[in-house]
Amino acid sequence: MECDLIITNGTVLSMAPGSQPLADGAVAVRDGRIVAVAAAAELVEQVPTASILDAGGGLILPGFVNTHTHLAMTLLRGFADDLLLQEWLSQHIWPAEGAFMRPDTVAVGTRLAAAECIRAGVTTVCDMYFFALGIGEVLADVGLRAVVGEGLIDHPTPAAPSPEAGLRLSRELLQRFRSHPLVSGALAPHAPYSLSASNLVKAAELAEEFDAPLMIHLAETRKEVDELLRDKGVTPAAYLADLGILSERTIAAHCVHVSPDDLELLAELEVGVATNPVSNLKLSSGVAPVPQMLEAGVKVGFGTDGAASNNTLDLLRDAQLAALLYKGVSGSPTCLPARQLGEMLTLGGARVLGLDNRIGTLEIGKEADLVCLGVDAPHATPLHDPYSHLAYAARAADVLHVVVRGRILLQNRELLTIDERSTLTAARRVAAAFGRR
Amino acid sequence: MECDLIITNGTVLSMAPGSQPLADGAVAVRDGRIVAVAAAAELVEQVPTASILDAGGGLILPGFVNTHTHLAMTLLRGFADDLLLQEWLSQHIWPAEGAFMRPDTVAVGTRLAAAECIRAGVTTVCDMYFFALGIGEVLADVGLRAVVGEGLIDHPTPAAPSPEAGLRLSRELLQRFRSHPLVSGALAPHAPYSLSASNLVKAAELAEEFDAPLMIHLAETRKEVDELLRDKGVTPAAYLADLGILSERTIAAHCVHVSPDDLELLAELEVGVATNPVSNLKLSSGVAPVPQMLEAGVKVGFGTDGAASNNTLDLLRDAQLAALLYKGVSGSPTCLPARQLGEMLTLGGARVLGLDNRIGTLEIGKEADLVCLGVDAPHATPLHDPYSHLAYAARAADVLHVVVRGRILLQNRELLTIDERSTLTAARRVAAAFGRR
Repeated sequence: MECDLIITNGTVLSMAPGSQPLADGAVAVRDGRIVAVAAAAELVEQVPTASILDAGGGLILPGFVNTHTHLAMTLLRGFADDLLLQEWLSQHIWPAEGAFMRPDTVAVGTRLAAAECIRAGVTTVCDMYFFALGIGEVLADVGLRAVVGEGLIDHPTPAAPSPEAGLRLSRELLQRFRSHPLVSGALAPHAPYSLSASNLVKAAELAEEFDAPLMIHLAETRKEVDELLRDKGVTPAAYLADLGILSERTIAAHCVHVSPDDLELLAELEVGVATNPVSNLKLSSGVAPVPQMLEAGVKVGFGTDGAASNNTLDLLRDAQLAALLYKGVSGSPTCLPARQLGEMLTLGGARVLGLDNRIGTLEIGKEADLVCLGVDAPHATPLHDPYSHLAYAARAADVLHVVVRGRILLQNRELLTIDERSTLTAARRVAAAFGRR
Repeated sequence: MECDLIITNGTVLSMAPGSQPLADGAVAVRDGRIVAVAAAAELVEQVPTASILDAGGGLILPGFVNTHTHLAMTLLRGFADDLLLQEWLSQHIWPAEGAFMRPDTVAVGTRLAAAECIRAGVTTVCDMYFFALGIGEVLADVGLRAVVGEGLIDHPTPAAPSPEAGLRLSRELLQRFRSHPLVSGALAPHAPYSLSASNLVKAAELAEEFDAPLMIHLAETRKEVDELLRDKGVTPAAYLADLGILSERTIAAHCVHVSPDDLELLAELEVGVATNPVSNLKLSSGVAPVPQMLEAGVKVGFGTDGAASNNTLDLLRDAQLAALLYKGVSGSPTCLPARQLGEMLTLGGARVLGLDNRIGTLEIGKEADLVCLGVDAPHATPLHDPYSHLAYAARAADVLHVVVRGRILLQNRELLTIDERSTLTAARRVAAAFGRR
């Protein structure tokens, strides 16, 4: 058997449903795809010429999938916190975005975010922001897998003076990344309440033309739901369904305030939900009914949302918080058990993005997006159960190696595709200007 | 001015109420006490002979105070999760404790926990467990500040065949650490429901005799409250108050299910509350009314509880989770703002343990318990606000240096008072026996 990379000396958690941990295992990769998952001794002996990535006795598992974020908002990390939502947005975030978000600054913020994502074991991101073409170029350059959408809204954005201009940017984006191996373009209408029905439909038509994902914020706040019920007599989910724009290609972010009927609708239309537990708590949006979503058969993955409302892109931390949160609010300590959490972080996220045929598990034929977690620290000792370790004890700082489509992005905690020092310096320079505003 | 250690090149967050961040600051220490907090340039020039600890441009702040834990339960990390409470305790935790917790294994688990605590920036722990004398010896040896209590219960424990024997062990503990500079003994009656009234009173009398703290689990579950209301017609807090055992020396852990009257009582009697947000969620105990406690003037600090119900001792993570959780459940994003959170992690915890005259802030005259946090990582970039950084973005992995009473326990992420490798090896060996049970 030929291969060009073997990740070895770890317990393989393939995250394939029903799979068992494979102790002393290894994963072999050729041309970016997994060609074998087997006992380490066997595999390394068979293929003596391949590059070796040593997991140091730790865990080897699929990379984490961040189903909703705004990467460039890392520049606004800690810029404004502990404020009422409307004040936070209208007096701090929007003015800063208007004044400082340009193609160059967005690229800086995106590269900073990519460094943070890779260090946190995130191998795929779904990003909604402005100047998405440039965002896609940065992510393609650093080697992250990504779905990127140009934020569309009925008001002028930093990138587009009108929704028509935003749709033109979206078409350009879709064309640019049409056959890219890692990055794909998507439509990103902001929310049901911030775009007219006709612009929502235009976005959906463009998504259909390119068979592209469509990401949208949905039912994030009680206010959004109440206003739509008052004005149109329907919930946000029902409104989008009535417009005919919900499909298996839709990625609905938040869905905090959804009714049982909404959940049935989302399940039936095969909409994927990106739940953002930390952002929803921090902004007091509420607690999304994730156990009910899963019960209803809705696809659910985790998202960090932007760093302005989190304040990191540490998806593992956010998933772990969800594992705890839902036990607390449901009243059942069996809610979101460890194994299920691991699947949601990986395969679940891939399903939400429509990428589960390519990533999300470590199985032969899948593309090789994976993470090695060290287990040498006190907080990882002892290690009675690898799934429990992942759900309750592992940390982003444990991430040793990260591979996307067979390319090593992080090796022994060193970023290989990003010049970290210059990236941090550039980000600090841009952020200092924000701070002087 | 003479001193023997200067911690320099960082932004000093003294956490003294009303204090401002001191950029390019330094802290000077002599004989374990803080003798100056001033501009770095000034201080380093004045005292050219002192040892220098360089914070690398990061944050210098008081060490974190873990007000409730069971350190040796690190050995049971991930041993049994995602189970109903009664099944978890009676079929997994208690049998494992009964079979494996001995003076030697408890010492191993405690040393492992100490390594984890130090790496997480925790400088003070309040521990309730069995064989507390040995626990105190381990903590004194590694140089952590600690309040330790021998767990008292009406049934036989691994350390004491009877409550009388437990009280004898408690007296021995109090005598051993009577004038120790770091470790102090305490009484640790388990809970209102697990000890007779007369044994609760005996514990309180012994605490009074030694002017020692008394730690107790209080109102952790709805069941505990309902049963006491049914059997005695009072809440657990009122029951303890009626027995006359609540005082400013009491550390009440959990207090999840407390009424407004209970809170008034706790405030009036100056009882400190150790809130354990992660453990309370993981075991589905509920969400303690922390904002209401603060409103009522109750002293509140954070605790991790034991690693079997957390599954780490990462107090910063747990406090950050609380900052998010209470925003989400209160409906107000201004609840538990960043600065307040930093104070609760440090000074607040010190108040709960009755140590705020000695630690909790970086002020002249206080003992030098402090932490340096690096801010070089992508997740710490940019750094618009140091309090926000601490509350929402900093990680245990950012902890560079840790000092307790002027002694360096961690330097450039290396443990100086614990042989980490042999500690981890010993813990794995003991835990393997648990696993084979």
